This record gives sequence, C-alpha cells and structure tokens, in this order.
Amino acid sequence: MRVDGRQASELRPITIETDYLKHPEGSVLISVGDTKVICTASIEDRVPPFMRGQGKGWVTAEYAMLPRATGQRTIRESSKGKVQGRTMEIQRLIGRALRSVVDLTAIGERTIWIDCDVIQADGGTRTASITGAFVAMTLAVGNLAKEKELSSFPIKDYLAATSVGISSDLGVILDLNYAEDSTAEVDMNMVMTGSGEFVELQGTGEEATFSHQQLLNMLEAAEQGIKNIIIKQKEALGETASLIKTSSQAGSL
Amino acid sequence: MRVDGRQASELRPITIETDYLKHPEGSVLISVGDTKVICTASIEDRVPPFMRGQGKGWVTAEYAMLPRATGQRTIRESSKGKVQGRTMEIQRLIGRALRSVVDLTAIGERTIWIDCDVIQADGGTRTASITGAFVAMTLAVGNLAKEKELSSFPIKDYLAATSVGISSDLGVILDLNYAEDSTAEVDMNMVMTGSGEFVELQGTGEEATFSHQQLLNMLEAAEQGIKNIIIKQKEALGETASLIKTSSQAGSL
Amino acid sequence: MRVDGRQASELRPITIETDYLKHPEGSVLISVGDTKVICTASIEDRVPPFMRGQGKGWVTAEYAMLPRATGQRTIRESSKGKVQGRTMEIQRLIGRALRSVVDLTAIGERTIWIDCDVIQADGGTRTASITGAFVAMTLAVGNLAKEKELSSFPIKDYLAATSVGISSDLGVILDLNYAEDSTAEVDMNMVMTGSGEFVELQGTGEEATFSHQQLLNMLEAAEQGIKNIIIKQKEALGETASLIKTSSQAGSL
Amino acid sequence: MRVDGRQASELRPITIETDYLKHPEGSVLISVGDTKVICTASIEDRVPPFMRGQGKGWVTAEYAMLPRATGQRTIRESSKGKVQGRTMEIQRLIGRALRSVVDLTAIGERTIWIDCDVIQADGGTRTASITGAFVAMTLAVGNLAKEKELSSFPIKDYLAATSVGISSDLGVILDLNYAEDSTAEVDMNMVMTGSGEFVELQGTGEEATFSHQQLLNMLEAAEQGIKNIIIKQKEALGETASLIKTSSQAGSL
Amino acid sequence: MRVDGRQASELRPITIETDYLKHPEGSVLISVGDTKVICTASIEDRVPPFMRGQGKGWVTAEYAMLPRATGQRTIRESSKGKVQGRTMEIQRLIGRALRSVVDLTAIGERTIWIDCDVIQADGGTRTASITGAFVAMTLAVGNLAKEKELSSFPIKDYLAATSVGISSDLGVILDLNYAEDSTAEVDMNMVMTGSGEFVELQGTGEEATFSHQQLLNMLEAAEQGIKNIIIKQKEALGETASLIKTSSQAGSL
Amino acid sequence: MRVDGRQASELRPITIETDYLKHPEGSVLISVGDTKVICTASIEDRVPPFMRGQGKGWVTAEYAMLPRATGQRTIRESSKGKVQGRTMEIQRLIGRALRSVVDLTAIGERTIWIDCDVIQADGGTRTASITGAFVAMTLAVGNLAKEKELSSFPIKDYLAATSVGISSDLGVILDLNYAEDSTAEVDMNMVMTGSGEFVELQGTGEEATFSHQQLLNMLEAAEQGIKNIIIKQKEALGETASLIKTSSQAGSL
Repeated sequence: MRVDGRQASELRPITIETDYLKHPEGSVLISVGDTKVICTASIEDRVPPFMRGQGKGWVTAEYAMLPRATGQRTIRESSKGKVQGRTMEIQRLIGRALRSVVDLTAIGERTIWIDCDVIQADGGTRTASITGAFVAMTLAVGNLAKEKELSSFPIKDYLAATSVGISSDLGVILDLNYAEDSTAEVDMNMVMTGSGEFVELQGTGEEATFSHQQLLNMLEAAEQGIKNIIIKQKEALGETASLIKTSSQAGSL
Repeated sequence: MRVDGRQASELRPITIETDYLKHPEGSVLISVGDTKVICTASIEDRVPPFMRGQGKGWVTAEYAMLPRATGQRTIRESSKGKVQGRTMEIQRLIGRALRSVVDLTAIGERTIWIDCDVIQADGGTRTASITGAFVAMTLAVGNLAKEKELSSFPIKDYLAATSVGISSDLGVILDLNYAEDSTAEVDMNMVMTGSGEFVELQGTGEEATFSHQQLLNMLEAAEQGIKNIIIKQKEALGETASLIKTSSQAGSL
Repeated sequence: MRVDGRQASELRPITIETDYLKHPEGSVLISVGDTKVICTASIEDRVPPFMRGQGKGWVTAEYAMLPRATGQRTIRESSKGKVQGRTMEIQRLIGRALRSVVDLTAIGERTIWIDCDVIQADGGTRTASITGAFVAMTLAVGNLAKEKELSSFPIKDYLAATSVGISSDLGVILDLNYAEDSTAEVDMNMVMTGSGEFVELQGTGEEATFSHQQLLNMLEAAEQGIKNIIIKQKEALGETASLIKTSSQAGSL
Repeated sequence: MRVDGRQASELRPITIETDYLKHPEGSVLISVGDTKVICTASIEDRVPPFMRGQGKGWVTAEYAMLPRATGQRTIRESSKGKVQGRTMEIQRLIGRALRSVVDLTAIGERTIWIDCDVIQADGGTRTASITGAFVAMTLAVGNLAKEKELSSFPIKDYLAATSVGISSDLGVILDLNYAEDSTAEVDMNMVMTGSGEFVELQGTGEEATFSHQQLLNMLEAAEQGIKNIIIKQKEALGETASLIKTSSQAGSL
Repeated sequence: MRVDGRQASELRPITIETDYLKHPEGSVLISVGDTKVICTASIEDRVPPFMRGQGKGWVTAEYAMLPRATGQRTIRESSKGKVQGRTMEIQRLIGRALRSVVDLTAIGERTIWIDCDVIQADGGTRTASITGAFVAMTLAVGNLAKEKELSSFPIKDYLAATSVGISSDLGVILDLNYAEDSTAEVDMNMVMTGSGEFVELQGTGEEATFSHQQLLNMLEAAEQGIKNIIIKQKEALGETASLIKTSSQAGSL
Repeated sequence: MRVDGRQASELRPITIETDYLKHPEGSVLISVGDTKVICTASIEDRVPPFMRGQGKGWVTAEYAMLPRATGQRTIRESSKGKVQGRTMEIQRLIGRALRSVVDLTAIGERTIWIDCDVIQADGGTRTASITGAFVAMTLAVGNLAKEKELSSFPIKDYLAATSVGISSDLGVILDLNYAEDSTAEVDMNMVMTGSGEFVELQGTGEEATFSHQQLLNMLEAAEQGIKNIIIKQKEALGETASLIKTSSQAGSL
C-alpha cells in the first residue's frame, strides 16, 4: 500500500476547472492530488523572428512556481535574476510536447504562449502542467477557430503526461507524489498522444540504474495511466472536444 | 453612475478565502471585484544579517503578477532577468505597511515573508495585496502563537488599504477598477489601521495636479472605505480576530 | 531647537548654481544645507518607442549617488549589476513630478533626460533633486525655445519639493536633514506647483502611524516651505523665469 | 546507405586521447567522427555547502561550445550574460549520469568537477561528452587513489552514451551526425552502464511521435552501440581499467 | 599651434581643490582644462578575503562618468546592468598605479577605496583621475596617520599621470584634450613617480603604428609634463606633503 | 639560467598548426611553450550597427580560457554571468592590434570575428593569442580573397606579440612563462609589425617601478623576439604568405 492508500498503478484524483481566469484566451486550474497548476494559453498575432514569413505558427511555454507552492519557501527567480536549469528544462519540455500535436501551419503566423504557474506542489508538477496546458491550449484554439477562418482545426490529437517510478518496496508505481518522488530509485516522465504514441520519454536513475525489463513494466503502467487522464481532458473540454479529429486508434479510447 | 454601476464612494465586493494553500503558515485568496491575489505568509526562524542579535523580528514582502493576470500578456520578470521599478515600489510599500502594526520584538528573531501573487488584475492590486496579506500574516502569527510562547500577540492593530481618485466626470471615486484607474486624473493609495490612523498616503497626479480641498475629500472617502474593509477582515479571521487587542477607538469599529 | 539650530518650520539654506557643466543643455548644482546634487537636462530629438508618432514629447529621470556621498561608502549599482528599489522609486517620482508641469505636446517629439547625481547627501536628496531638476529642465527648454520654433513655452508652472516630518520631541518639522530623518516617526515628501496645487504626496510612518490632524499640520508647513523654495528657483532662472506663464494664483507668489 | 556511408547501426570512428592537458587531474580529447570534445576532471578537496558534513563526495559537470565549434559562429554565453536552457539541460544530464556509477562515499568529502568543452561539433556532443568525461573522471580518480588512501575504488562500473533516431528513409539509425540529427523525426539519447543497465533515456519526437515497437527497435540498436563504445573506453584507460570492479555481467563485455 | 592655443609640450591648466566633500576621509575636485573629476579616498578597516591574515592592506579603485559628462549623453552602467570594458580597464589601471607607491604593510589590514567620478570630460579622464586620486589618497592616509599609530608613513613617493600623442600635423603633443585625442594617430598614457621612474606605459596606435624614435620623443615630453604636475600636487597637499619621504632624486623636483 | 633552461633573450618553442578545425574560415592551434590557444577567424557578411554604410569592414576579438587551462580550476564567466575586467582588457587589445594591419576598406562591409580560446595556460596567453590570431585571420582573408573579388589584399603587414620583463635575479628576460611572470617585477607586452613598428606597448610595474634605461633594454629584447616569431608565422602561412605585400623594411626580415 502506498503512502496515500493508492494501488501501485492508480492515479491521484484529477480535476480540471476550465475558464478559470477572465483575461486569457484559454485557462484552467488543474489539480492532480495536491498538485495545483494554473495553465493559461495566450494567442499573439505574430511569431518570433526566426519563424517569420514561413506561414506557420509557434507554441512556446513558460513554467514557474509560487514561492510558497512548496513546503519550504523558495526564492523567486526574478529576485535571483536568472531562471534555473530545472525551470528551463521543464518549460522546454512543455513547449516541445505541445507542438507535437499542433498543426503549426493551420494556426497561421501566430504564437500560442503557454504559462504554467504552480500554486501548490506535491510532485508531478511538470506532467500536470502538460496535461492542463493541453486543455487550456485547446480552449484557446477553439475560441480562435470561432473568430477566424482556419484551414482546419490545428489540434491533431490529445496529449497528456504522467510519471512512473520504481520504489524499492513497491516496485513500479504510477503518478508519484512528492514523498514518493523523493525516495524512488528511478523516475520516468512520459508524454503520450490520444493515439497511444510516445512524444517524450525521460527516464532517470539518480544514483541508480534500471534494467530493460523494469523499463517495459514502467511503460505499461504509464500507457494505461495516460489513457485515463485523457478521458478527464475530454470531459473538461466539453463541446470543444468534438473539434479534435484524431485517428481511429484515438477514437477507441 | 460608475462603469460597473457603483456609487462614487462604494467599494467593490470583497471575499477573503482563508487557508487557501496547504504549505504556508498563513494564506488567503482575496478577491476585490475581479482583482484576485494569492497572499501567503511564511515564517522563517532567522532574520536578515543586518538585524541579527537585536532580539527583534522582520517582515518583508514580495509581489508579482502572473503573465496573464492582465489583458495583454506581460513578460515574466525572471525572463527579463530583473525586477521592474513598479514591482519594487509595491513590495517595499507592502512590507513597510505591515511592519507598522507588528510588534517586531514580540515575534522574536524570526522573519515573516509575505508573498502576494496577483492571478487576475482589475485595478487596485497593491491595496488588495495589503488587505489580504494582513489576514495571511495574522493567521500565520496566530499559528505561531499556538506553537511557541510569545511575550504578547505581535499584531497590534488591523491594517487595510484602498485607493481613491478623481475622475473628471464623477469627482472623487473610491476603490478604482482598471478602467477607472486608466482615466482618473489623480490616484491616491491609502493604508490605515483599525484605529483610524494613517500608515501610508501616496497621492499622484500623473500629468495633473490636485487642490487642498480635493485632497480632503479623497481622505474622507478612503477613511470610510477602509473601515468597511476591516469588517471583512474580522469576519475572515474568525476566532483569530480575538487575539488582536487594539485601542478603544479600534474597538468601536 | 533643532540639531542645526533651525526653527521647526525653517528651511535649510538653498543655493542653485546654474550652467554648472559645459556639455548639457541645462545644468545646476543645487545645495540644500549639506545635500548637494548635480542636476542636468539633456534634450534628445526622439521619443521612446511606446510614444512614437503621437506628436508628443517625454520627460524621464535617472538618479544616483556617488559612492562616498554618504557617511559610509555605498557600493555602486553598476558593480552590483542592478538598480535598487529605492533608486527606482526616486527616479520614477522625479520623472512623474516634472511631467506634471510640462506641456508634452509643446516640446514636440523630443525626450528630456534628467540626471540627478547626488555628490553629497545629508537628507532630502529626492526633494532637492526635483527642485534642482526643475531649474535645469527649464534652462534646457529655454535654450530649445531659442533655437527651434515651439508652439508655446512648454513649462506651464513652477515645481518644487520638500520634506516634512514628525519628531517625537519637536512635533512637525520642515526640511529634515539626515539626522532628523533617521529619528523621525513620520516622513512625508511633497511636490507642489507654483499655483499651490499638489503633484505628489508621499507620507510614510515607518513602524509608526499618524493622525488626520497631524497630516493637516504637515501639509501647512510644507506648503509654506515650497513657496519659499520657488522664490529661490525664480532668482536662479533669471531672465528665463519670464518665459513661464503661470495662472494668476502663481503670479501672487 | 547513410550520408557518410555507414550502415544503419554502425558507430562513427571513436578516438580517445588521454592526458591531453597538463594541469587537470584527468583529461581526454575524444573524437566521435567529426565531433571533438575536451573533457577534464578536476578534484577539489571540499563539497558544496548543501553536502557538507555527510562524509560523501559530489560530481558536477559543466558543458560549453567554442563559438566556432559550429558551422555558424554562436555567441558566447559569457557575452550574453546567461547560460542557455540547452546548456543547462546538457550539463545536468552529464553530472547525473556520471554520479550513477560513482560511490560518493568512497571519494570522501571531495568534488569532482567535469568540464566538457566542444571544440568541433558534428552531432552527438552530449553523448560524446559523457563517454569522454567518464574516462577523464576515471583517470582522475585513479590518480587520487594512488595519492590518498580510499576505502575502495569509487568507480563502480563503466558508463557510456550514444544517440539513436528514426529517419523517414532508413528507419532506426545509430549515432546520428549533425546532418542526420537535423532531419530525424525522433531522437533518443541513451546512457548505459557496463552491466547493461539504463541510466538515462531521453526520447523526443520534435513535431512527431513514435510507437511502442519503434522504441524497442531503438533500444536494441543503442544497447549494442554502447557495448562497443565501452570497449574503446577500456582501451583508452589502459592499466587504470583494471581498477573498475564491475559485476559479472559487465565482465562479459 | 594647437586647437586651444597651447604649445606642443604644454600642459592644460590644473587646479586641485582639496577636502571637496564632507564625508570621505580624503577628497579632491581636480580640473585639467575642462576635464573635472571628483576623487575620493575611503578607508575601511578590513581587506578583501584573498588578503586576510597577511598583515597587509589593499588599494582598489572605481571609475565612472556622469551620463552628461560627455557631449552626447551616455547610458548609465547601472541601467545596462554591466560595467563596460573601458571602465574596467581604467579602474584596474588606477588601482595598480596607486599601489606602486603605497607600502601596503604600513597601512595595516585596511582597504583604501578610491572613487573617481568624472563630472565633465574633455580628454585625459584616466590620467586626471590618477593625479587627483593620489592627492585624495594621501590626504586620507594623512588623516589616518594622525588617528592611528602607523609604523611609517605608507605613501612612499609622488605619483602622477598624463597623456602624450602623435598628431599628423604637429608631431608629438602633450596632454591631449578630447578633440586632439579623437584625431591623434597614437595615444600613450604614462604614469610616473616623483623619482622619475615609470609605473605604467600604455601606448596604442589605433589603426596606426609608431616607430622607435617616435616613442623616445613621446617619453621625453611626458616625463617633463609629469614633473610639472607633481609640483601642483605638492601645493595642493600643503602640510601633508611633508609626510612623503621620497628618495633624493624626488627631493630635487 | 632560467627555470626552463633558456637564455635571458630566448623564446620558447613555437608551433602553429593551421586549419585545425573544420568549420571556421581560418583556424590555428598555436603552442608557445606549454601555452596552447585555439585561434579562429570567422567572416560575417555585415558590420556592427555603428559602422553600417561606410563601405568599411571591422575586426573584433573575443578571448576566453577553458576552466582547467590553469593549475587551479577557474569558474566559467558564463556561470558568473559576467565577463571579467582582465578578459575585456585582453580582447580589446587583440582586436585593436589586429585592426592596425588590416585595410578595413579592402575587406568591404564584413566583420572578422576572432576567437582565442586558451586550452592550456603557462604565461603569455594574450601575446600567443595575437600571434596565432594573426595567422588565423590571414588564412580566412586568403580564403575570402579566392572567393570574392577584393580591391587589394587587406592584410598590410605581419603582426606578432611577445612579453618581456625584469627579474630581480636575471634582469631583462624575454617571453615569460607563468612561473617567471608571477615573480617578475615588471611585465611588458609588446605588439609589433613586420616592418618593425610598434602597435601596442603595455608596461606595468605591479608594486614596483622601472627606469628609462630598463625600458630601453626591454624594447631591444622584445624587438628581436618578435622578428623571430614572424619567421614562424611565415612558415605556417605557406603560400598565403605571398599575398602580404609589406614595405621594403618588412621584406628584409
């Protein structure tokens, strides 16, 4: 039995509150257990300099934590005057993952800015950010599609993420909270589409290693977990969900 | 009639949700109309170097806005690598105002870190931050008083803030929202105690000026508004409110 | 009796040496007691990006202290790589105050850069900077008016500043020096026009508060003080003073 | 056939020149095809503050490229005043990977600083850095073991890395050069030990995705490639190789 | 004839106003022609970390220009967030030059901070800074010697600087003003002691070169110029001059 | 006898390996004794903003050391977030020196970026950088001249540098290694052309001074040394050497 009473391959409760803020084109407050992230999507009518004139759009992400999202207060990155390596890694991951399901040509020369601000952290903030940001982005693009004529709906498939790890006591465990994350020997973050394809796979053994078989076991648990998360995303999106035309495999979710 | 239907000296609706986050010693989500700020108070068992060995504590504040708290997305200060002048001004104001009602000796050699993070902005973010931060700080100090023996309860009086301005159409107006703030000729922020004393008074005529009589009219409106805000703070604090032993004048609120 | 022998509502001696430097369009060395500030005004034939194409000008200010302007050497902000909150607050105040008496349309698409560099500090550096910068700016605009055809003289009124405070011994005192400023319970900076209107009012009780009546007493002392400072500005401006066409009220000074 | 004539699962030629520089405790110049990296290991007799007093050591890494390691000159990070996200990601990866095969207790309270400076880049700079840094670190630790009494030899196993990807033409390809990396749909970096265990697995589909079966195919190719790279490391280490006492599985390489 | 009517080997008029500011231990306002620099010397009772425990002191210098010291306003280095190469070069030069005439052991574990702030620039700001800083430092050390028992007077000799250059029209010219400096083919800064020894020699041909004979001619002019500058320093120092016990050669100046 | 067995006016062995890297337009690995520097020259088809539209080119240089080029590991400037004064001084010197022998008009509106990265340091890194950078630049310009029609060959003369110093034991010594540099009383860097003209002369007595006669002796030793270095440059340049048309004096080398 896990510290919070879950089964080894059981997700934490997930809630996704849509249109959480009044200004952004799309916004959600996602809770995955005690991890809470405000995800917003902002649409800007131009692209960064390196992409101009190509008739394509761009998706980019930023990530931050409130100082007291954590048990101990952390110093603001603005006070330190620089963004930490961990933050950069996470925001690069979020942007890359989201771009894999967006038809950049269909959004035209626009930038979608994703902001993920963790207001309470209990493990899995990067995967909750991806899951929530997908919904915020889809809402924003849904609004864009109502206002502007787009060649097709730019979101090609669902996208969600979770973590999986290996605990010395319990073996493979899904969706680690902070206490589990701190003691796990191996930690793997996975991002998958509604069609069951991989987008990102980042497995790390901090001062430890893992075998080929352990890898296969982690993949299996994560694949099932992500299917269940995508069901939550569909519910949260409501009518907007119908705009996403995925392949037949996705339809079977 | 004002843009949102209020009378000239009418406050916007205020709600203060206490214990909003699980990690901080004190936290609230304050809403003043559409302005929403997460205020947290963190207690650290040491003081900054310049105060060590004096047997006194310190209160300091930081303020930030989520990028999409505003109508247009604003760039993160961490991305720019520096904190803007406006932010510094506001966080210095919040810290200074809170210190005026804290008995620094009674908290011992501890620092109270206040964090005010605006998640939605519609004018008056600095005054909402002060009002909310006072409640978060009092909750945190209330918790501290339960765990540690303090010589006396360190919060000496209530503290709240609001804005008042002069509109060319309507004259003196209380608690300006963003639309009103953008067009007002004069903008004044006031911070007062439960005893009706001034703590801060910052009046500014951007490309305009104001007369002695106009100043007196603004003071009158703001004094009444702050009395009403303090009533909301008392309700939000619940039992903790009884720990604040103010002078007789405050008792009459 | 005050520490330097002044009456409670007596200003320190003020001298304003005009055309102090050879390069700037306008420059003064202002001394208020032992506080000495070099104020320069530079005119640039363009405006910042956010103002282009509006047919209006801009006034902006920067403020700094020499490392040894103070009793203890302070580290240069360039060495630290960032500008401190206090500096930003002051330079924003100076710029805002000066803009209130400038007809930005009359200066055309030009920027007036004000630089206030404190070479010796003894309290009241920000108010001395405003008082001196007004003279430097007026000299620069006077020179501009000689060389270029302006629709009207852009300086609409006089502008000066002083501080006022409350001492536990002496009550309300005007124009605080450093020793007084360090021990005063309340400190208020006021900026007023030649017409007797308020431009800025910043009253602060650091770890203290002040009553409505104390506020009224401070206003009275400061209003009289600023009238006397403006007389010094007129003398310093010499012939250029005649270019400022203020309202009848100002004429009565 | 690949652009440089290799088979799909063929590595580029690898050379590892040991003791390349005179000052560092361990150093190599590693060439993997046209990618050339100077890897040094420096031993410092103390650990970072967060590790003091635990009787354990630390391994940390830094990574950089000469401005003209690349086809187009890139701006120095020191000139820009900040380290880019990509650099941080890579140096965090290198440090984490090396720590997985080091017995931190056996090195005592010492820090091993790894510096990987790419002097010529043609794809795979991060994996070449890990492969080379392992050799430099082992040489440095070998020297340390000669001078100081260590409880046991701190390097527990071999460690090497390579990349594998999916090309639309050729399917799974091993050890991508720059031209291949730029056009591959999927790119995966793998770090493994001499015992055949995984340490890091980072698979990314930039604007693409990959299936479960494709993942298995990539793992197979990379596992074989890393075995061959470790043979090169053994040759380069010479006598020092005998100090590494790996498990029986590693012995069979 | 030179642009300002001087002979080729004639210095500009020099004035050195001592005790210019009230706070620093030593201060001067030096004018060399239209170049004006405030030089201060501050004595701190400790040395930087790299010198602790050696029983020796340190001398270090900082240099800056007011934004409007120059014909065109220059941006503050604090606003840019970094110190420019030219500034660093100059402040390193000033510190190094002053240290050559100070007995660091005789000042004890103290740091002398030199600040040179150019308030008006017309060429030769670095050499005027050295000449003025020597006087400010000597005054500060003179005051130190009165208050504390020093083993001997720490200033071992006079120190002054000037520039010399080659103009295509006039050949070798001494003490270049800004107009001359901008058009000279070769520019050499020289720092010498009262004993006629060299401390620094920095000759530069920007997009030009100079011959062995031209070098000898420049040395001759500069040597004579520096002798005359030292006479001015002696006058400015007044009684304090008698504390400097130089070698016989210096005595003959 | 010197520490490495050399005569007082004997250079260390010099090797210059050309075309060391595959990407840059020109590159060398220069070794001067144990000092090793990778010098590259990159040609960019535009000039910095301040030079646009003048029909002239620009040459600029950057300099850095690998962290473990030195006996003790030094912190990367990118990690510190700023470039140190010493680095700026050196890169400004390299750029200025190279420009003195380049006909900027003949290279057209192009920038030549010089990068000098010290991979191993044993004294004299700045002079080795200049000597090596000259060869890398000439190779790059030689390649440019083959591809584009230039009005004339832009390199007007040879350029090389060395150091000379005064040791208390040995008197004047040429080409100081690190051990000698650390103990020398005076250190002078000289940059000269193939025609025997001076370009830069930087003599410094750190906590010491030097006489007129000592200066003449240092000049003599350095002039002879530079002649010998230029012979090495000619050999390294091979056929490209014939493109440099120097004056008759240079021809006699």
